[in-house]
Amino acid sequence: MRVAVDAMGGDKAPHEIVKGSVLAAQQFQNDEIILVGDEKAIQSELNAYGKSFKNITIHHAPQVVTMDDPATYAIRQKNDSSVTRSVELVARGEASAVVSAGHTGAAVAASTLHLRTLKGVRRPGIAAALPTRHGICIIIDVGANIACKPIHLFQYGVMASVLSKYMFGIGNPKIGLLNIGEEDAKGNDLAKETFALLSGSGVNFVGNVEGREIFDSKADIVVCDGFVGNILLKFAEGLAVSFLSTIKAGAMKSFWTKIGLLLCKPTFEELRAKMDFSEYGGVPLLGVNGICIICHGRSDSKAIKNAIRVALQLSKNNVNEHIVSELEKTEAFAATAT
Amino acid sequence: MRVAVDAMGGDKAPHEIVKGSVLAAQQFQNDEIILVGDEKAIQSELNAYGKSFKNITIHHAPQVVTMDDPATYAIRQKNDSSVTRSVELVARGEASAVVSAGHTGAAVAASTLHLRTLKGVRRPGIAAALPTRHGICIIIDVGANIACKPIHLFQYGVMASVLSKYMFGIGNPKIGLLNIGEEDAKGNDLAKETFALLSGSGVNFVGNVEGREIFDSKADIVVCDGFVGNILLKFAEGLAVSFLSTIKAGAMKSFWTKIGLLLCKPTFEELRAKMDFSEYGGVPLLGVNGICIICHGRSDSKAIKNAIRVALQLSKNNVNEHIVSELEKTEAFAATAT
Repeated sequence: MRVAVDAMGGDKAPHEIVKGSVLAAQQFQNDEIILVGDEKAIQSELNAYGKSFKNITIHHAPQVVTMDDPATYAIRQKNDSSVTRSVELVARGEASAVVSAGHTGAAVAASTLHLRTLKGVRRPGIAAALPTRHGICIIIDVGANIACKPIHLFQYGVMASVLSKYMFGIGNPKIGLLNIGEEDAKGNDLAKETFALLSGSGVNFVGNVEGREIFDSKADIVVCDGFVGNILLKFAEGLAVSFLSTIKAGAMKSFWTKIGLLLCKPTFEELRAKMDFSEYGGVPLLGVNGICIICHGRSDSKAIKNAIRVALQLSKNNVNEHIVSELEKTEAFAATAT
Repeated sequence: MRVAVDAMGGDKAPHEIVKGSVLAAQQFQNDEIILVGDEKAIQSELNAYGKSFKNITIHHAPQVVTMDDPATYAIRQKNDSSVTRSVELVARGEASAVVSAGHTGAAVAASTLHLRTLKGVRRPGIAAALPTRHGICIIIDVGANIACKPIHLFQYGVMASVLSKYMFGIGNPKIGLLNIGEEDAKGNDLAKETFALLSGSGVNFVGNVEGREIFDSKADIVVCDGFVGNILLKFAEGLAVSFLSTIKAGAMKSFWTKIGLLLCKPTFEELRAKMDFSEYGGVPLLGVNGICIICHGRSDSKAIKNAIRVALQLSKNNVNEHIVSELEKTEAFAATAT
């Protein structure tokens, strides 16, 4: 398998991206990594290792999308950017997956434009795995589609079910709808219509899931529109950081709590690892015709290496083929929904 | 001042509600508390104290709104419920505030129906204070209005500014708009239109606030629609509980981390207190003609006592009069917005 890595995307690009790719190349020796971006900059990073890697190649792209570029501008005006060139490699079949820690909007726009959607998919959606008390909960969409219709959320449920099975080993996962109450008739128009659609669809729908219930394993998958999902995901990150820093600052106030904090270090390390986005590496954009893994802007080499692992896992498990066949089964039903 | 307390609302009603009211009556001896609900049940609770309280009276209401009642049903079919009767006391001027830990939707509906909105207010909104690293952030709306227009969010900013000043002592607070990016043109239609409205309004608007920035004191007030706000608030609660229980379970794994956890107890107690909704007591429904404090369903006596304190504070500071006069100043501007 070949994975195209956007070497110029992310706060720590190209250094950490190249480093993560090297780690992945060493771990997955039967697979290939194509580093896409400024040839000189990438080569200079690779030279630092003092040896060559037979499964790493460079694909030159002279432009870089910056975080200040609006997504549409980035795609229309920067045809030669590392993210667009990476996606094009997948579109032409020269790679089966793309990994980018750059501008999320640009990665989504480039993927949607150049890869197109899978057969039957109305809108691509980003699926993020949130650590809960007893495992994980997949939230979809967390930012690709902020103008969702019920059919989009329904399809997100189906696509995430495939992801759940082939990435996390949970077959027939429980699908919930993010809402403001447990009762059937709660929520805004989108929530009410989606509830009705999911209820009659034959998928494993467990009803409305409130914000606090995400952590209770009520559902393995929670569908929501990308506006709410994106806010929620970033809120979780902010709350977790705030929480840990409050504990640390609080414990520094006295001698005994300082000692206590020191003794608890393994516990906090474990918690930090559980919440650490770099463990998961990246989140897949589901529904496009190719594997696209979007990484956190602050991704380090570990995150990139894990994102490449996820990309390979999804490619090798033919997740997209399974998505197409699962959606096909719901086609007749979905036709009545629009 | 007189506060009407819905004695039958909440998971621990009437016991904890009456207990909290007794605590408040003892603390605020110049104020009066009217316990509204089943006379016999309330009297029996009061009898347990073995003495009478000169500033507590009972107002009989034979019906109770249960959590299973849809809000509209509760209001239309249960005219004699404790929450409706409590609100009516305020509407008739026999009390200046109502406190309820019962069905939130019913309390909002009853207040909107019987108290009506303040002059100039388009839609009432619930303002919740979220503890952050350096203080608090007021999120409005967290569930009263799930079909928001830009003008509603604009007014929420103005109303919460008054609350910020008279409840938390922060004059000229920074107002932010909850959104999915920092750039001006980000977000769904509501966010984009609200951004434009707030930008030109002359209020202290600091721009878009992402989920993670809520904890960074970027804004003192964050406006959002009630669907997103409600999900966020409950999500925060779930995440905090999950976090603490994960730490506890993790620390139980070894002898030394167990000791560490024990030593850190004061730190965790402090954190728990900071996050504890019962410290704040309840959240005000801003924009109705009367003070309405909505409490968590799981409120205990401490939460109820604090909610009564908040109700008195808002009444005595004439928060509603200030809201009307602040909104009057924006009237000419707001007229152009609809």
